[in-house]
Amino acid sequence: KEQPGSTWLLDFEQEVATWTGKEAAMFVPSGTMAQAIVLCCAQDIHLGGDRVPSLPRVRRPFLAHPTSHVLLHENEGHKHLLGIQAIPCGKATQPLTCRDVEAELDASSWGVSQPCAVILEVPHRELGGEMTSLEEVKAMSALVRGRKVKFHMDGARIWEAMPYITRTHGLTSQEFCQFFDSVYVSFYKGLGGMTGAVLAGDKKLIDEARVWLRRFGGNLYTALPYAVSCQHALHEMGGSFESRWDAMAAMVTVVQGVDPEKSRIRFTPETPQTCMVHCHIRGDQHKLEQCRESVAQETSLRLFRTLRPSYAFTPDWFYFEFSLGPENTKVPLEDVEHAWRLFLLAVSGP
Amino acid sequence: KEQPGSTWLLDFEQEVATWTGKEAAMFVPSGTMAQAIVLCCAQDIHLGGDRVPSLPRVRRPFLAHPTSHVLLHENEGHKHLLGIQAIPCGKATQPLTCRDVEAELDASSWGVSQPCAVILEVPHRELGGEMTSLEEVKAMSALVRGRKVKFHMDGARIWEAMPYITRTHGLTSQEFCQFFDSVYVSFYKGLGGMTGAVLAGDKKLIDEARVWLRRFGGNLYTALPYAVSCQHALHEMGGSFESRWDAMAAMVTVVQGVDPEKSRIRFTPETPQTCMVHCHIRGDQHKLEQCRESVAQETSLRLFRTLRPSYAFTPDWFYFEFSLGPENTKVPLEDVEHAWRLFLLAVSGP
Repeated sequence: KEQPGSTWLLDFEQEVATWTGKEAAMFVPSGTMAQAIVLCCAQDIHLGGDRVPSLPRVRRPFLAHPTSHVLLHENEGHKHLLGIQAIPCGKATQPLTCRDVEAELDASSWGVSQPCAVILEVPHRELGGEMTSLEEVKAMSALVRGRKVKFHMDGARIWEAMPYITRTHGLTSQEFCQFFDSVYVSFYKGLGGMTGAVLAGDKKLIDEARVWLRRFGGNLYTALPYAVSCQHALHEMGGSFESRWDAMAAMVTVVQGVDPEKSRIRFTPETPQTCMVHCHIRGDQHKLEQCRESVAQETSLRLFRTLRPSYAFTPDWFYFEFSLGPENTKVPLEDVEHAWRLFLLAVSGP
Repeated sequence: KEQPGSTWLLDFEQEVATWTGKEAAMFVPSGTMAQAIVLCCAQDIHLGGDRVPSLPRVRRPFLAHPTSHVLLHENEGHKHLLGIQAIPCGKATQPLTCRDVEAELDASSWGVSQPCAVILEVPHRELGGEMTSLEEVKAMSALVRGRKVKFHMDGARIWEAMPYITRTHGLTSQEFCQFFDSVYVSFYKGLGGMTGAVLAGDKKLIDEARVWLRRFGGNLYTALPYAVSCQHALHEMGGSFESRWDAMAAMVTVVQGVDPEKSRIRFTPETPQTCMVHCHIRGDQHKLEQCRESVAQETSLRLFRTLRPSYAFTPDWFYFEFSLGPENTKVPLEDVEHAWRLFLLAVSGP
């Protein structure tokens, strides 16, 4: 009798469900909440016919890449709020592999608290948008499901990844999402919606997720302002990622041409798989920043913002996230090349 | 360095903090989340100098009235999500008293898991807006604090209650809120904001609450659409509750005059303390609804919507929530009286 949302919201949820090839979907105010709800549902211990179980006393842990959002940016909510342990899995500098997951699943005799889920970030944001290969995803899916563990996609940037998946492997979004039991997508990052996420999966999962949404305090009296903005962003920007990826690739090629020996400038991945990439620069941090400012004064192009110690190259290397949105795609490649040449000269100079 | 919100949002939070007389306040997307965060903070077991502790393994329960929102309308989120038990306290048909709380605190030897908090709803929504008396609040506050238990106000409808508190006891909102360690207020119910809540308390509490907000996935990328709507609603409607209460009182007096023997129509509380009240009607449910419809046809006034079995009078009594907002306040009292006379005639007829 009670509707979980307005008809309009149900339509939007169905639109995303269809895009992912899943039966059902639910709007959630934030990705943090969406993924926490997945972990609650994945506990999957149904006692005494209770359709929507409480969390059991021994909560099952989950596996995730060391750089995943849940491990880095959520104040360990899974642990402190849910009492669910995260098990970092795989090397921090490389995409998650099936072998990583298998080793972790084999590593211990988990007993009743065997992992409830594996979270795969598509693409790995903290690895410059690099992706676990499709072969690995397929193998991982078969492995994880064979162990009765849920396979969840952190698809916060799935929109960025789809052009690569489609062009390289010829897969539709539905065909790619079928390897996962659940998919979370976000609307405010690459798309520019105000805030909000959608969780998609089979009907049973989403029915249970709606109960958890209420328990989290996430079923707001109205979700419309955010949800309308999210749908608008999806319709407006959803088709922009192929050209943004192409522009990124072209820009990286140009910058690579400025330093062909890669003595000062390197990219990970070397060929962008999305409209973002990590650019690593060698030098003294203060000098790098000074040179960025002088180039900005001369060319009005500020090449980067925040420098972080490089995880891929050490020592003396720093990196920044290089990503293309609707605006910075328009900068002419000649201007980019010129600015980077000036920057390299300045950095290498006395 | 990192700002928890925009300057505007911080100003709005400070506005509510000032209204409650508390040091600090935080915008939360929903009241369910605000109160769950209070319960997490109230665990208050600081281990090894950890300023923001995780929930300890043995989570302390809390006391709340059997009709409180957390017990009735949140799918037992406190239990299933947080692992925190609710202990119903007091009689379901009467406001919570200090004696109720004392009896429960004395009832068991709680040991390490003694209750972390007492939640008092001001006013009791499910009791027709009746309030625990000020004397009881004062005594309860002293008792609870003496036991090192947190005293939290569910002030979802505090705006409705303030005219009574001010006129009857001469207290300002700050003077009333001082009896509580934390106060949650809502903006979408009586005020008509889109959705949203604010939690107020001392700085230490709100600092910790901000960490929990992130763990819940409640620190949205932007809270502005909701928060702006909430502040607007507060400024627009915050001053309306005294006249709405007066109108409610006048309307109840008129309806009581229609059935002075109280054989068919009764109110709880008998004298409204806010702009809402419960109206109990005796009769066959189907016939009551039929008569409501025939009166609506004749007068264009639909006297009530949903009938529920009365908790105060049994058997053959039903009740509905009678509340006054900006629109139905304008109906002339003569029209109200006329409609209720017709209704009573119809119900009592053959």
